[in-house]
Order: sequence, then C-alpha cells, then structure tokens
Amino acid sequence: MAMAGSPGAKKGILERLDSGEVVVGDGSFLITLEKRGYVKAGLWTSEAVVEHPNAVRQLHMEFLRAGSNVMQTFTFSASEDKMESQWEAVNTAACDLAREVANKGDALVAGGICQTSLYKHHKDEARIKKLFRQQLEVFTRKNVDFLIAEYFEHAEEAVWAVEVLKEARKPVAATMCIGPEGDMHGITPGECAVKLAKAGASIVGVNCRFGPCTSLKTMRLMKESLWAAGLKAHLMVQPLGFHMPDCGKGGFVDLPEYPFALEPRVATRWDIQKYAREAYNLGVRYIGGCCGFEPYHIRAIAEELAPERGFLPPSSDKHGSWGSGLNTHTKPWIRARARREYWENLLPASGRPFCPSLSKPDA
Amino acid sequence: MAMAGSPGAKKGILERLDSGEVVVGDGSFLITLEKRGYVKAGLWTSEAVVEHPNAVRQLHMEFLRAGSNVMQTFTFSASEDKMESQWEAVNTAACDLAREVANKGDALVAGGICQTSLYKHHKDEARIKKLFRQQLEVFTRKNVDFLIAEYFEHAEEAVWAVEVLKEARKPVAATMCIGPEGDMHGITPGECAVKLAKAGASIVGVNCRFGPCTSLKTMRLMKESLWAAGLKAHLMVQPLGFHMPDCGKGGFVDLPEYPFALEPRVATRWDIQKYAREAYNLGVRYIGGCCGFEPYHIRAIAEELAPERGFLPPSSDKHGSWGSGLNTHTKPWIRARARREYWENLLPASGRPFCPSLSKPDA
Amino acid sequence: MAMAGSPGAKKGILERLDSGEVVVGDGSFLITLEKRGYVKAGLWTSEAVVEHPNAVRQLHMEFLRAGSNVMQTFTFSASEDKMESQWEAVNTAACDLAREVANKGDALVAGGICQTSLYKHHKDEARIKKLFRQQLEVFTRKNVDFLIAEYFEHAEEAVWAVEVLKEARKPVAATMCIGPEGDMHGITPGECAVKLAKAGASIVGVNCRFGPCTSLKTMRLMKESLWAAGLKAHLMVQPLGFHMPDCGKGGFVDLPEYPFALEPRVATRWDIQKYAREAYNLGVRYIGGCCGFEPYHIRAIAEELAPERGFLPPSSDKHGSWGSGLNTHTKPWIRARARREYWENLLPASGRPFCPSLSKPDA
Amino acid sequence: MAMAGSPGAKKGILERLDSGEVVVGDGSFLITLEKRGYVKAGLWTSEAVVEHPNAVRQLHMEFLRAGSNVMQTFTFSASEDKMESQWEAVNTAACDLAREVANKGDALVAGGICQTSLYKHHKDEARIKKLFRQQLEVFTRKNVDFLIAEYFEHAEEAVWAVEVLKEARKPVAATMCIGPEGDMHGITPGECAVKLAKAGASIVGVNCRFGPCTSLKTMRLMKESLWAAGLKAHLMVQPLGFHMPDCGKGGFVDLPEYPFALEPRVATRWDIQKYAREAYNLGVRYIGGCCGFEPYHIRAIAEELAPERGFLPPSSDKHGSWGSGLNTHTKPWIRARARREYWENLLPASGRPFCPSLSKPDA
Repeated sequence: MAMAGSPGAKKGILERLDSGEVVVGDGSFLITLEKRGYVKAGLWTSEAVVEHPNAVRQLHMEFLRAGSNVMQTFTFSASEDKMESQWEAVNTAACDLAREVANKGDALVAGGICQTSLYKHHKDEARIKKLFRQQLEVFTRKNVDFLIAEYFEHAEEAVWAVEVLKEARKPVAATMCIGPEGDMHGITPGECAVKLAKAGASIVGVNCRFGPCTSLKTMRLMKESLWAAGLKAHLMVQPLGFHMPDCGKGGFVDLPEYPFALEPRVATRWDIQKYAREAYNLGVRYIGGCCGFEPYHIRAIAEELAPERGFLPPSSDKHGSWGSGLNTHTKPWIRARARREYWENLLPASGRPFCPSLSKPDA
Repeated sequence: MAMAGSPGAKKGILERLDSGEVVVGDGSFLITLEKRGYVKAGLWTSEAVVEHPNAVRQLHMEFLRAGSNVMQTFTFSASEDKMESQWEAVNTAACDLAREVANKGDALVAGGICQTSLYKHHKDEARIKKLFRQQLEVFTRKNVDFLIAEYFEHAEEAVWAVEVLKEARKPVAATMCIGPEGDMHGITPGECAVKLAKAGASIVGVNCRFGPCTSLKTMRLMKESLWAAGLKAHLMVQPLGFHMPDCGKGGFVDLPEYPFALEPRVATRWDIQKYAREAYNLGVRYIGGCCGFEPYHIRAIAEELAPERGFLPPSSDKHGSWGSGLNTHTKPWIRARARREYWENLLPASGRPFCPSLSKPDA
Repeated sequence: MAMAGSPGAKKGILERLDSGEVVVGDGSFLITLEKRGYVKAGLWTSEAVVEHPNAVRQLHMEFLRAGSNVMQTFTFSASEDKMESQWEAVNTAACDLAREVANKGDALVAGGICQTSLYKHHKDEARIKKLFRQQLEVFTRKNVDFLIAEYFEHAEEAVWAVEVLKEARKPVAATMCIGPEGDMHGITPGECAVKLAKAGASIVGVNCRFGPCTSLKTMRLMKESLWAAGLKAHLMVQPLGFHMPDCGKGGFVDLPEYPFALEPRVATRWDIQKYAREAYNLGVRYIGGCCGFEPYHIRAIAEELAPERGFLPPSSDKHGSWGSGLNTHTKPWIRARARREYWENLLPASGRPFCPSLSKPDA
Repeated sequence: MAMAGSPGAKKGILERLDSGEVVVGDGSFLITLEKRGYVKAGLWTSEAVVEHPNAVRQLHMEFLRAGSNVMQTFTFSASEDKMESQWEAVNTAACDLAREVANKGDALVAGGICQTSLYKHHKDEARIKKLFRQQLEVFTRKNVDFLIAEYFEHAEEAVWAVEVLKEARKPVAATMCIGPEGDMHGITPGECAVKLAKAGASIVGVNCRFGPCTSLKTMRLMKESLWAAGLKAHLMVQPLGFHMPDCGKGGFVDLPEYPFALEPRVATRWDIQKYAREAYNLGVRYIGGCCGFEPYHIRAIAEELAPERGFLPPSSDKHGSWGSGLNTHTKPWIRARARREYWENLLPASGRPFCPSLSKPDA
C-alpha cells in the first residue's frame, strides 16, 4: 500500500505542529475492541495486544488508512497496578504493533500512559511516579517517537505524569478527561492547561469523557488561559464520538447509558466533519478522537481538513465526499442525497419514539 | 483458540436445524467494512476480499468468536453484471477466506448470491440464471457447505435463484428483503415463503431492509402461510441492526438517514437479546443479522440463547452477562448498573434534542 | 354583536348539509371547563350548567364567535343513572343556555345524549331506552333543532339511542367513540355506520377518543361502507384536539397521560387547519371537535374553510390569518413568521428533552 | 359563592407578605384570551375589557376560584403610546372589572403597568414617566390596593416606573422579564433587583419570557444580591406556563414556536405543583404565573401550598388532589393513576414523533 507522504524519514510531532501542520490523531480502541469482542467492559484493559494481536493490528491499520498520523500504543491501563506482572509484555507488544503499522504510512508512534488506580486513595507521588516510569522504560527501549499522558481527572497526577515523561527527553503531550467545570478538585481547565504546560508538556488538551461540542468549549478555556499566561503549548483534542450535551461534571460515565446503551448517541461522519472544522478554527492542530471514534470518524477529520493538508487519506478511495457515492443509485430520491447540503442539514431520527432525547446523570 | 464444539466432522446445516438446534448466523459485512474503510457505499461491492483480505478475515473471525455457526462468503453483488471480470477472483477468494476461518471453530461455509441488477429492467430468466450459475460453479468447486439466496425484493427472481442453487444438490436457504407488505409486486410474505419452499428451499425467511421487530412480523406471516400450505421449511431471519419502525414498503433505503446517518438507530446488545428471544419463541432457528449487526450483536444472540444451546460463545470471555463486568467499578452508581433489570428497562437517550424520533420515508 | 348570517329564520341542519354547506361543530366542554375549574375529572358530569351558568354561557359564546353553527346542550352524562334526580334541572338549564347563545348568531341547538353506565353490566334495552327517553322529553319540550347521540363504544347501544331519538321526529346525528379497529365487540367502523344509518340517523360519524388523523381514517372506512351499502348519510367528525398516534383500540383513556398530562399533545391551530381541509376533502361536512378543542381550534376550522363558506367567523377579528398579525413586530425574525409556509412547516418542539414522543397504552 | 377568608376588611399586600403568608398571583390574560378569541396576537392589547367585558370578568372569576389573591387589572400595554385615546376607557373599565371580582373573595386589586414602546428608540425619561403617570392617575382614582410594574426588559425603565408608582403612596411590586443573563444591557438579575428595591419597590422579581425552572434560577440570583446588599424586598415570581429550557437571552419570543405553536410546551398541573414548592423553598412568597398559566395552573399552586396556607381554593371542589378523582373509574388501569407517585413521575409523551424536543432560538 502506498500511503500519502510515507517515504523518507518522518517529521517529528513538534516539527509538524510548529510548522502549522494538522496532526490527525487516532480513535477508539477500548470501546471499539469491546464491540469486536476483545476487551472487557469494566476492566478496560489492553491484554488484547498479546492475546489477539491480529485484532489490534487490524484496528491500527484502519486508523492509518483513515488518515491518522499517530499510532498510539494500546497501553491504556497497562500499568502494574492494574495488570500486575502482565504489564511489561503488554507494553512491549503494544509498541511493536504500533511501530509495525506506523511503518506502513506517515504515522508516528506515541507511547501512552493514563491515570493510576492509586491516586484516589493515596496521593503517593513516589509510588505513582514509579508506575509511570515502568511504562516509560519500555517506551524508551522501543524508541517511540513521542509520549502522551492522557485521561487524567486530577491536575496534580497529570503533572506528575508529565514530569516523569519529560525524563525521556522526547516531546510530551498531556490531555485531561475534564469538561468546562474542570478537574475533580475544581481546578479550572485554564489552570490545568497552565500547570501542564509549565510542567513541560509541549502539547496540552483534553480527551474522552465528553462529546465533541463540550470538549471544544473546554479547549477554548484552556487556550485563553495559556494565552493569558504567555505560554505557547500546542492544542490537542480527542473527545468522545458520542453526543453528550447532558453530561454533568463527571462526563459520560455518570450517564445511565454508560457503557452499554450509548448507541443512539454515536456521531455521524458529518457531525465529525463539523467538529474537525470547529477545532481547526479554534486553533487546535492535533485533532483526533477517543471512545466511540471509529475509523470512519477519523477519516471524516482527514476529509474535512484535506484542503488544509493537501491530500485525502488512503481509505477515501472507498468514500465519496459528502455522499457523492450515491449519485449512481437507481432510485432518484437516493441520488438526491449525494450532496453536501443534504447531509449537513439532516436531523437524523433515532427510530426510538419511546425514548427521551436527554438523560439525567446519576451523579 | 479452542472453540466450543470445534473438534470432529461438523454437522450439516439441515442436520442441525432438523434436530432443533439453534443456528446463529453472522452479521454485517458491507456496512461494517464501510465504516472500517474497505467498502464503498453506493457500490456496495465486495472487492475487499482481494484488496484487503486481512480486513475481511478479521471480521469473519470476530463473528466466529461471537458465536456464528455460519461463515457466509463475502460475495454480495459479486456477480458479473456488477463486477465484470473481477467476479471470479472475488468469489474464489471469498470462499477461501470463509473456509479458513470456519475451520477454526464450529461454523459452516455458505455460498451467497443476491438479486441481480438486471431483473428490474429485463425479466430475462435465462440471462439472470446464468449469472447465478457462474457464482454457483465457484461455490461448488470450493465445496461450500450450503447455499444462501438472499436480498431478493421480487419473489420471481428469488425462485429462479433457488432453482439454480438446487442444481448443486446442497441445502438451500432463501431470504427476501421484504417487510409485512410483501414483495415489490405485492406478493405477500406468506405467498413468497410458499413459493420459495415449493421451489426447493429448505430454509426460508427474510434479511435486511427492516429492523428486528418488523422482520419478526414478516416472519410470522411467512410461518402461518407455510403451515397453512402444509410445507415444512425451516425459518431464518437476518434483519437490520437498526431500529426502523418508520420504514415504508421499501425499507430503510427510503428513509432520509440512509446510508450515512443511521447511527442513532443502532440497536443495543439488549435490544438484540430481546429480538433473539422473540425469534426463538416464534420458532425461528436460524437467527442472525444483516446490515448494522456488529460482532457484539451476534454475541448477544448467542448469549441470549446460551441456555438453549448449552454454551457461551468464545468472545463472552470478554463480556459479563447483563453488565456484570461493572460490578467492581469504583463508583457505586455504576456498580448499580451490573444487573439485568437495569439494562432491560433502560430507555436510552439520543443526546440529540434537536432531532425527531421518527422520519418520513422519501418514497 | 352582529354575527355572519344571523338574521332571519335559520336553515335546519339537514337543509344545510343537503345543500352542501359546511357545518362547523363546537368543541370541548368537559376538558375545557375542567381546566377552568367547573368540571371534575373522573366524574365528567355537567352540573356546571346549574352551578355556574356564566361559565358555560361564556364557553358557548366563545364557540359561537369562533364560527360554530351548533350549540350542543352541555348534557354529557346528564342522565338519571349518572346524576340521579339532578338530571332534569341540568338538561333544562343546558337547553336554555344553548338557545340563549344560539340566538346571538347563526347556530342551531342540538340536544345531546351519550352512552349509559348500564350497558356494560346489563344490556337491558328497555331500561337504557328509558334513560334516553327522559332526556329526549326535555329536548322536545325545549324544542331543540336536532339531536345528537354521541360517544358510544358499542354499536348496539348507539342504535338503541338512535331509535329513541327518532321518536321526536327531528333530525338525528349519531357518532361513536371508536377508531379504525371498530367497536368494543369488534364491529367494524363500516358496519357501525351502516347500522346507525339504517336505524335512522341522517348524519353519522365519530367523536372523541382518537386524534384528528386517526378519526379521519375511521371516517374513510365508514364512508366506504355506507357507499357500498347504497346509504346516503351525511358524515360528521369531532375528534380529540390532541395528537394521539400511539392510541390502542380503547383510545386516549388508555394512554398513561390521560387525563392530567395531555398538554404536550395539544394540536396547534395549524394542525387543525390541516385536519379541516382533509376532512372536507374526504367529503365530511359536519366538522367539529371534542375533548381538547378550544375555541381557537374551532376558529381554525372556520378559517380554513372560509373560502368554501364565503365568510370568516366573528373572532377572526382578533386573528391574523396564518400569523399575519406578526408583520408589524419590532424584531425582524418575528416578522418573518407572518406567513403560511412558516407555520405549515414548523415542527414544534416540546421543550421536554427527558420525555419520549410516544407512550404505550396501558391496555 | 362563599370564598375562603372573604368576609371583613382585607389585609393589604404587605401585611400579608410581612406576616409570612403566601400570596397566590393570577395567571395568563393575553395568551388565554387570544385562544378564547378576544385578544389579537402581535398587538397584545387589552381592549377586551371594553369590547367583551364578560369574557374578561369570567377569566378573573376563574383565577379567583383557583385561589388567586390578586386581581391584576387587565391593562397590559394600555398606555397612550400603544392604544391612543382608548387608553383611558380601558384602564377605567379594567379597574372596575378587577374590583367587582375581587369583592367576591379574598383578593386585592393591583393596577399594572408595563414597559413602553418608546424606550427602545428614545430614552426620554420625562415622556415615558408621563405615560406611566397617566395610568397611575386612573389607578389612584379607582383606589386599587397596590401597584405592579411588570414586563420590563431594561432596568433603567423599570426604575422609572417604580419611581412614578411610588408617588401614589401604595405598595409597589416590580418584576422584569429577564432570565439569568440579565437585562438587555447586560445588567445582572442581582443588580436589577437591587436597583428596583432601592427605587422603592417593596416586592421584586421576574415575570414572563422564561419557563418556571429558568425563572427560579433568576430569582435565586436576585435573592442573593438583595441579601448581600442588605435589602429586604419580598420576592415575586410569575413565569411562563411553558417548558422553555432552550430559551436564549431574549426568552420565548425568540423561539421559533412563538406565539402560535407553543402547545407542546404547556406545563402540566404537576409541573406547576413542583414549581410552586421550589419557589416556596427558595423563599418566594408572591407566586403566580404569566403567559400560559391557565386557571388550573393557578389552582395547582394553591393546592401545593394548601398545607402552608391552611385551606384549599374554591375550585378544588372540582379537583381531586393528585388525581384522586380517578379512583372510581371502571377501568382498573385508570384507577391505578389516582395517586401522587404516578403523576409525579410520569414523563408525558408529545404524540409528535416527527418533532424535536428542543428548538434553537432565532436570535
């Protein structure tokens, strides 16, 4: 497969962002592989990299074809506190899988860590940092291209993560799973962003827990505070691929549909094109997704920003822009859907007249 | 991987159904692979079997792990009228992929054909039968276990398909893509079923175009007519994995959301468990899905009918029945979701308060 | 007040209908006066005519101003079985009130009876007919212009009512509170209509229990059967002023919102204009409303059919057709609503995102 | 009619509020009389007091029976700028009607003025105050019990109104038609409340434009600011009787359904009981309604607060508390609705599956 921009030594993540390029992130692993049968909801651990490497490789491939510039190692919750001795094999295998696929296109490998299970009970900085450092050692040995600290709900723990990752002398991105109300201790998004940037993160933002619209609101607050503080971090957003206007402070986990009845909330590709454009207009340049982002959602980002990037992603060979693939349909009313205005303005029905449109969070 | 019931010579499709076993079908290929980036909407052809065999193999594997007893060759629209000379390579590769995966578990290989693009314009029986016969020759050479004629909207063309498939002296299943209003010429579901059974189909039913509830209504009409006619065909249902109460006679293609904004209609796993139970209670024993049925939906069929079948599917090792995987969650209100009553009674919100719950068909 | 067509001797109900005129019925008394504080839900009796005659007179006046050609005596359930000795005073006072207001415009007085509380328990024809005859004696003494037997759910009892009313040698209208599934014994709408016409009703149709759309479906079935039977009854429809697509056979009383949470279902004036046009196109010429029909809904009928009738109702002096009264508003976006297309196409929101759009009947 | 507390000299409005009594306001005149055929939407003027005094008297009576302690003169927009020379006759007749009905029960007469049409164009204090003073002269001559300045969207004009009304040496209430975002110049609700109290209003709050929930949010902001400023005004709230969570800063007039398709948003009586309880718990003691508040909504306030007030309103003789009037229904599933839990927890359906649940404001 010949991928756009694949030959030659790749530009690093900061080279790209510093030069104003859009970096397309990848999408959902846990939720997507849960639906494919390889991840257990509730545990949300990533043992699939050793148990079913083909399934993980295939998903990496789909994101690469969809236009992702980042193959994030599937190491979510792959720390010793959650996986015991299995953690090392998982981190190693995840790096190899990510690199194998990244080599097939214009993608970098990012080693990823997330919040520990310890912080809530014991704010033991030394012990927590040790957990981060274990994963980092594998990432260093496997020479990942950059590092991501993601899914932190407390600014303090996120800062510790950045401090550890900085030891590897690779670029560090840090995203928190917070909404406009801020972290679990009431630290505002703006303050969180400033703390992360000051701790050394070159890229800051949010991931998971909230839908695209809400996450962009949070990003705006982060951007304004960084700017007010005179800090120059790049902005990164990887929201849920679900519509979640009814989330409370805790995000989607508190809504009654989590995690087994989120289907009616899944974004369409057109919703995601709108999100990508708004993120771009806000100045965010690392744009991806988290839970619920399927490969076609990532392709929608890449298609929306194709004019800026100068090329379409590989899997657009199987996608007519704005529904144009329908223009040869035998039924004239279906051909009439082969245009941008149609899909941009459609308000899709749920087919569920006995269901409400919003829920009340449990907490 | 050790799969339930895998060792030894496999029982044939009719042996299973005659003895009262439940046969779990597979799910969606076109819509699912479109979202993964390997199928083009509008064309809906299956060239992925030669272009990206790993992606197709992976999806077969997911359905096998989810409990499918049938690996249907991914040969939808793979006839000469739609794929020109490519048709032969596609049918051949599809058979090999299906067999390779079927060999890893307790699944049979079914060669599948569907309605032609010719019938609407020229009801040329000889030419249409020739197209069917071409695909059948590959299926025969590759020695598939049985044959499926599916997605027919005209009873006459479906009968022709059955007549051709019968030539191979293998069991034949035939499903039409019709709803309770019958085929495009106004032939009722009951009449369709009788025609198909009389033409030699051992298994009859419906697939695609309509949601689970509507398809079961159609099945009831078929069942009653078969019974009234004294015919003993087995019943088979493979509906959409979408809620579609607002479909008109033409099914989901006529709804404004088709095919790029169907997300809010996707069934939950709990919806599918209910469907599987109702299908079983109606006497249907070949129960699967069509467009929109992801691997976890097939798993939901297999889990619902585990008491009858005596075993859980392989991928249930990554699924706690009725949400039980949540019972160790740190938040008590999420632990409270780890029970059957919760998910059975939940009315999931769409997160889309500006959207309606039903649409009006375009035709 | 000078009302259209008020001077001179009035044309009778059959003269009007025979000559092809539209007769505009009146609207809701029980539900409307319940909201105004004069009727008790559950009992649904009409003692207000003696307790609070001003309130009843005012409501008659509002319907007259809205264009009603019929002042139906407010004698619903005013039979001896439901009101004991009070029945006579109520029927007498109701006739006087109706006549007093009818005299102010071009309206006739109709004496109304409805189903008894006895029929369900004892199909005692003699006793039931005696109850009807008691009310009829008051109507005869007060010389009402014609008679209405309404809100019958059993064809047999409705026929008995018609037989009694015919004794007075005045025109008789008969409407049943049934939907397309027919009466409580499974007699189809068409059979009901034929029975009523054969018993001597000059005008037949349905009232109450179902929304406008469903009631028109029922009317179509009645019309077809009357035509097939060669009977020439006039058609009359007085549906609920509520949207009720989710009703079962028993109509709105079985829906969980009955009777205290029907608000979100109230029809707009534009919905009623559409209903009036469809009723007219179907050939119905006695067009009114039942529970939920407020004076402005009746005005909407009169405004929609003003071209056919040749005049607007009195209260249109307080109503700009199709929102034209907004065309002097200071805000331009509100002025933009002063046109027919706007209101015809508007899909009004409920403001209730936590509520479903349909309910399941309790029975 | 014997009304609770009617005999003897009545306590004044401040006597009542100072002693901690709940004062139940009245409800909707413009919107309600528009539906009854006596007010023209768009103009929204009150000429009905001279054209159709019976209709206005009847509505006053319904509110009195529902438990209102205040008969507000129907003088909305009855100032010279909007009604030319007709203003004086309208104000005079409105006072007489209000007094006539107030005399039948325990209600006071309040003379009401509202914002002028001038302020938007010319902030001409002298001319605007002259308009207010004209109406005040009639109120003084007719000796109303107290005065209300209501429906002001600019704090400055509201203050001018209070300053004029204070000249009459009667108690003054002042309510603005603002939401939590404050007045049209960005003055917060808290600042508005402080300005009004400092100008001499003994009672301050909000009316119209926003639904009950939103109005109570605004009241909370007012209360906090009054408390912080050490001011002791009584609190008054008279919101819309519509669900309006989707309002923007301008309130309901900017929503696409205004004013002719608001039906699906009408509050149930149970919604209003909840509102009354929340208003009471917040410390508001003057609790009524504005557009959309029908007599039964006012009764719902009086019924909810009957334990605090010690009596039920007159029209509760036609209302079983919490649906208890249904407990003799012949159908058991309808009897099962005769209880508080049923109605408190019911989520009423709209019967409109093709409509959204929320709208986007036009401005």
